[in-house]
Amino acid sequence: MIQTVLVDVSGVLYQGAEVVPGAVEALARLRSSGRQVRCLTNSTRQPKHRIMAKLHNLGFAIRPEEVFTPVAAVLDWLVRTGHSPHLLVHPELEEEFSGCDRSGPLAVIVGDAAEEFSYESMNRAYRLLQKGAPLIALAKNRVFMDKDGQLSLDAGCFVKALEHATGARARLFGKPDSEFFRAAIASTRASPAQSAMIGDDAESDIAGALAAGAAEAYLVRTGKFREGDETRFAPEPTATVDDICEAVAYLTSSVSLKAEPPT
Amino acid sequence: MIQTVLVDVSGVLYQGAEVVPGAVEALARLRSSGRQVRCLTNSTRQPKHRIMAKLHNLGFAIRPEEVFTPVAAVLDWLVRTGHSPHLLVHPELEEEFSGCDRSGPLAVIVGDAAEEFSYESMNRAYRLLQKGAPLIALAKNRVFMDKDGQLSLDAGCFVKALEHATGARARLFGKPDSEFFRAAIASTRASPAQSAMIGDDAESDIAGALAAGAAEAYLVRTGKFREGDETRFAPEPTATVDDICEAVAYLTSSVSLKAEPPT
Repeated sequence: MIQTVLVDVSGVLYQGAEVVPGAVEALARLRSSGRQVRCLTNSTRQPKHRIMAKLHNLGFAIRPEEVFTPVAAVLDWLVRTGHSPHLLVHPELEEEFSGCDRSGPLAVIVGDAAEEFSYESMNRAYRLLQKGAPLIALAKNRVFMDKDGQLSLDAGCFVKALEHATGARARLFGKPDSEFFRAAIASTRASPAQSAMIGDDAESDIAGALAAGAAEAYLVRTGKFREGDETRFAPEPTATVDDICEAVAYLTSSVSLKAEPPT
Repeated sequence: MIQTVLVDVSGVLYQGAEVVPGAVEALARLRSSGRQVRCLTNSTRQPKHRIMAKLHNLGFAIRPEEVFTPVAAVLDWLVRTGHSPHLLVHPELEEEFSGCDRSGPLAVIVGDAAEEFSYESMNRAYRLLQKGAPLIALAKNRVFMDKDGQLSLDAGCFVKALEHATGARARLFGKPDSEFFRAAIASTRASPAQSAMIGDDAESDIAGALAAGAAEAYLVRTGKFREGDETRFAPEPTATVDDICEAVAYLTSSVSLKAEPPT
């Protein structure tokens, strides 16, 4: 029995500036069925308070403690290890790091920096990595559904470029890092085996959640979904559904999807 | 018996604006020993006539037909396949493509674009790749020795980012593509087994030449060389030497390096 449902935000609850039709009601239905909801987002173009404001403006009743972003985990890591951040992130995200100590050895933190990704900023990061700074990825997503309805490059491609230059591997704090999923699940006191994921990214959301032990993972055809995604990464989704509404219908029905997968 | 010697340019003949001490004389010595010389460069920040001018200004007697760049091979491919170029290259290199037909389906050509690598230019390239444009790499070098004496990001990292975004693999026309080495060797009528390479890039120059069938490959400690490079990629260099002068000394001596490697 699924007790906790993890939901990706961009591409699942909204697309660009528009709410996914029926998503507000679907989320309410999940809650009234007694299940807990946690939102997991790798979006790192905005600080969390801006994400919360957008969700509220679109009509979603979600509390800050139900929303997990990679930034909190990275801030915790910085304090624990005594590192100071060298940021290659979106300018809007910089405020989240404003409280950081600036006297420690530098760690290179890469998020979805968008227009801040330039040859100069990438090369500056590379040279710090060359000198031994650790490489921290807020996300490794390859692409995302942009405001103009087309796919655009996401942080993962630029993380990959830096990994390729240095031969080092970035430490990842967002999806599909298992720790990220487990921290969100643990906050609900459910176990991974009592949890399901709903997402539009077959790699970061779906394969990531299943690898972290989630019992089920629903790939939605909204957001960045493209035909063929359902078999592109392993483990594959429990089911591929039209949108969050159909995923919630499965989750709140008495039918066990795992026993009788839809054809 | 080595009849043809392939020589990388940047980092071997010169470093930044300075000639590598003794390199002019070493190249002359190679020629007077009866061996043919071919220069293979993945440098794609300048058109070939600028590379030639720099070599001449530094005192190297090298003819244009002895210098191989990836651009000529790509121009040939564009004509053969009927593609038109979408350029993600250094502005100085664009003139080399000025004669291209502009009416064909686009192919994305990536060189060392330097400051032209921006989020916008990368994303534009990605979206063309998404629509089916082939990805052509003038080089896949990870880093190069920059004018300020530090390593900087080279085209390969940005090619990798685009490969990562699309799941496609770039077609490479520069080193370490075997065809590139073989075309240069063929122009001297020697066989790969009668050829040797001198380079500062253990991956593109050394492993590349040996994989293409060259009998020997000398890794120099000038240019981008860093301790540990000699064992970082397979196949490993025949020998690691201080500079081109030492490489030429081995090549023109009667000692067989393959039988008695230096300790």
